[in-house]
Amino acid sequence: MTGGLTMWAARALSRALRAYCTSAPCPRPSQLPRVSIRDALVSQNPRGENMKVQGWVRSVRSQKEVLFLHINDGSSLEHLQIVADPSLDSCDLTFGCSVEVQGVLVKSPYKKQNVELKADKIEVIGHCDPKTFPFKYKERYPLQYIRQYPHLRCRTNALASILRVRSEATDAIHSFFKPSSKVKKQGKNFFGVPAFLTVSAQLHLEVMSGAFTQVFTFGPTFRAENSQSRRHLAEFYMVEAEMSFVESLQDIMQVMETLFKSTTEAVLSNCPEDVELLHKFIAPGQKDKLEQMLKNKFLIISYTEAVEILKKASQNFTFTPKWGVDLQTEHEKYLVEYCGNIPVFVINYPFDLKPFYMRDNEDEPQHTVAAVDLLVPGVGELFGGSLREERFHLLQQRLARLGLTDTYQWYLDLRRFGSVPHGGFGMGFERYLQCILGVHNIKDVIPFPRFSHSCLL
Amino acid sequence: MTGGLTMWAARALSRALRAYCTSAPCPRPSQLPRVSIRDALVSQNPRGENMKVQGWVRSVRSQKEVLFLHINDGSSLEHLQIVADPSLDSCDLTFGCSVEVQGVLVKSPYKKQNVELKADKIEVIGHCDPKTFPFKYKERYPLQYIRQYPHLRCRTNALASILRVRSEATDAIHSFFKPSSKVKKQGKNFFGVPAFLTVSAQLHLEVMSGAFTQVFTFGPTFRAENSQSRRHLAEFYMVEAEMSFVESLQDIMQVMETLFKSTTEAVLSNCPEDVELLHKFIAPGQKDKLEQMLKNKFLIISYTEAVEILKKASQNFTFTPKWGVDLQTEHEKYLVEYCGNIPVFVINYPFDLKPFYMRDNEDEPQHTVAAVDLLVPGVGELFGGSLREERFHLLQQRLARLGLTDTYQWYLDLRRFGSVPHGGFGMGFERYLQCILGVHNIKDVIPFPRFSHSCLL
Repeated sequence: MTGGLTMWAARALSRALRAYCTSAPCPRPSQLPRVSIRDALVSQNPRGENMKVQGWVRSVRSQKEVLFLHINDGSSLEHLQIVADPSLDSCDLTFGCSVEVQGVLVKSPYKKQNVELKADKIEVIGHCDPKTFPFKYKERYPLQYIRQYPHLRCRTNALASILRVRSEATDAIHSFFKPSSKVKKQGKNFFGVPAFLTVSAQLHLEVMSGAFTQVFTFGPTFRAENSQSRRHLAEFYMVEAEMSFVESLQDIMQVMETLFKSTTEAVLSNCPEDVELLHKFIAPGQKDKLEQMLKNKFLIISYTEAVEILKKASQNFTFTPKWGVDLQTEHEKYLVEYCGNIPVFVINYPFDLKPFYMRDNEDEPQHTVAAVDLLVPGVGELFGGSLREERFHLLQQRLARLGLTDTYQWYLDLRRFGSVPHGGFGMGFERYLQCILGVHNIKDVIPFPRFSHSCLL
Repeated sequence: MTGGLTMWAARALSRALRAYCTSAPCPRPSQLPRVSIRDALVSQNPRGENMKVQGWVRSVRSQKEVLFLHINDGSSLEHLQIVADPSLDSCDLTFGCSVEVQGVLVKSPYKKQNVELKADKIEVIGHCDPKTFPFKYKERYPLQYIRQYPHLRCRTNALASILRVRSEATDAIHSFFKPSSKVKKQGKNFFGVPAFLTVSAQLHLEVMSGAFTQVFTFGPTFRAENSQSRRHLAEFYMVEAEMSFVESLQDIMQVMETLFKSTTEAVLSNCPEDVELLHKFIAPGQKDKLEQMLKNKFLIISYTEAVEILKKASQNFTFTPKWGVDLQTEHEKYLVEYCGNIPVFVINYPFDLKPFYMRDNEDEPQHTVAAVDLLVPGVGELFGGSLREERFHLLQQRLARLGLTDTYQWYLDLRRFGSVPHGGFGMGFERYLQCILGVHNIKDVIPFPRFSHSCLL
């Protein structure tokens, strides 16, 4: 059993050599199948298969009778144990170097692992001087320390786990919106068309939702916010969805809640070890908090009710809560705690606080729009969404009042020609990862954080 | 059988109403399941199920005895035929308006379709004045005409088909790199971790490939090219992959070829009607060309051989082919035709033409690097890739000569601490779509094209 690329490479080499191929470096003879460490580790009954593995050395223990190595290639949190004759040791074999190991996979006599590789050849591919390498063997560093080394930090367990979780969550989000083609044919397609807009913006999604009833996009978004907060980045990922023919905010909230829960369940089931590591060392207590979020139905309160709750609070806020004013971070935090740390939808915000495209609730005396934010423990606002103003005359009046009629003729056209009730939401992907993993600083859940006045790499 | 969202909405509404919910607009009673047109059309044996469908009217034919409508919701190219009593007609029921139709799905007595909906209620949701709507019933417009209406063009068959193909191709690319979790557990994971870098740049992928052996990213890329070409955009999508422990350019080329072929086969099998429409009306002859590309093994020639071929050509080029100078569009075109319109890898480019990170072949007298471009019919360069210089001293010398040593200390670190032979490639996603569909202008394969001196929406 080999990883996909390996199989391919082997297949490719076994084919007749192509005409004219003169590429360098010259191919080394490579009969042995290359196996990923993840694949090696899941072997239940190794029968002494010959193979090679490649990766980076995580520990070297040279004893009189035996040499132990642990190597990791990023495919799993767990390392593969290599057992070899001490004669295979060399001074180049250090923590951090890259190696290729050939040998046979056998049942391990040790309790800690199921299998191990009995090596007959160990080749150091790339050296690593342990004196200058910024990470030391067996040290556990805080995230803010490894953040100084954005180009090397994915070699640490914590960052590698976060990035595997990020990758699984990305997959899960795609699967949520676009089940595999096979399933789709059985009538389960949810968000049919089309993934990936170049412009990750809700107004453009609205254009698409004028021809396709459910659309989503997932990609980078840029904000010029000059914030040094632990919750803000200049460049972050956003999942956005837009749905036509919706009947109420309920429809939108239902999708938001299911997206959160199904993505999280996929992550928990596909990389339990990574999540466990992070919950254990980075965010003790987070496991229980997450279980609370998953097992309870999310709550719903109106903005007006939220302000009443804040006004009655015994806590002294820096910003006095008042109807018609935006909720501040401290308010969001209080509201989530008030709700027993269960995620809470806050709906129906003041008309004057929100952008022109949100649907007028036509209520009084407190005039609101059909907007919704989802507040979650530890992070605050995770999703924002709304019904959009689909009624031509109401939208036209608002644009006229703002002096935007000319700019938004194209947007008015969407209401002129076959308008439909519609709405949607956006979810900040990094905040989502912070929320489920309990990672305090948003810079630790993205491979290369960009934030104001800083661009390390 | 209902579409995913529909099922959810129904489930959501059937649950007890949540506390505090005061969202507007007020929910309409909605007992009938909402079915996507795609799902309705695939019903083999309709048994008079009651349902509602929603979408946009594509034709209205009112006869004495019967009213025929065709409606489309973007879920498929094919429309659903609605059959109703002429009394349900109204002056609002026009080409382009949005409707909700309730009725029963029955076997159609007409040859053109398998099923039709016998309507007992037709509600016009959003009007559409046929006099001002820029598209007319039954007209087929050239792509450059509909390009004037970026906010409405996805209501045309051609653009909707292109966008469905784009969506399928996006899915297929994700599936290529990340098979579903279920399959993955059986040891088939190809590119494990992590999808989605914020920075879609090869140097950053190299950072990741220093801890994970296969990584990929798929997202928007920005270029300040001041080109009005049919092949350039200021913002386009790029698929990039990086692989550690590769042995030669062969490994990279094998992945490129398999990515192209498996993605295309998935598109052809998942949206055959859309591809057929485009091949028929937009690019006659493209079907055969594509078959040629898929059934032949891609060719490989060296840059040096390419220049020799061009020198011997009887054709007069605007730019005289010469070793050491970049290939021009006219050269690429000639080479692809010379190769019988089979995609061709051109490898081993002059050292002085290529960026510092490409791997030195250390050959002479014609000094080259291990770079590869894939040229394809109709488009020219579709992929670019290379082995990367993994040898510390060679890289250090080149950076020093360029005066870039300080800037790229972090990049040198990757070679200092456990370097591995690695390489990768990038594929322009819009050019890929142009290539398989035969769409001449790149602006027609992306929802919202951004190009120099133009930003319509």
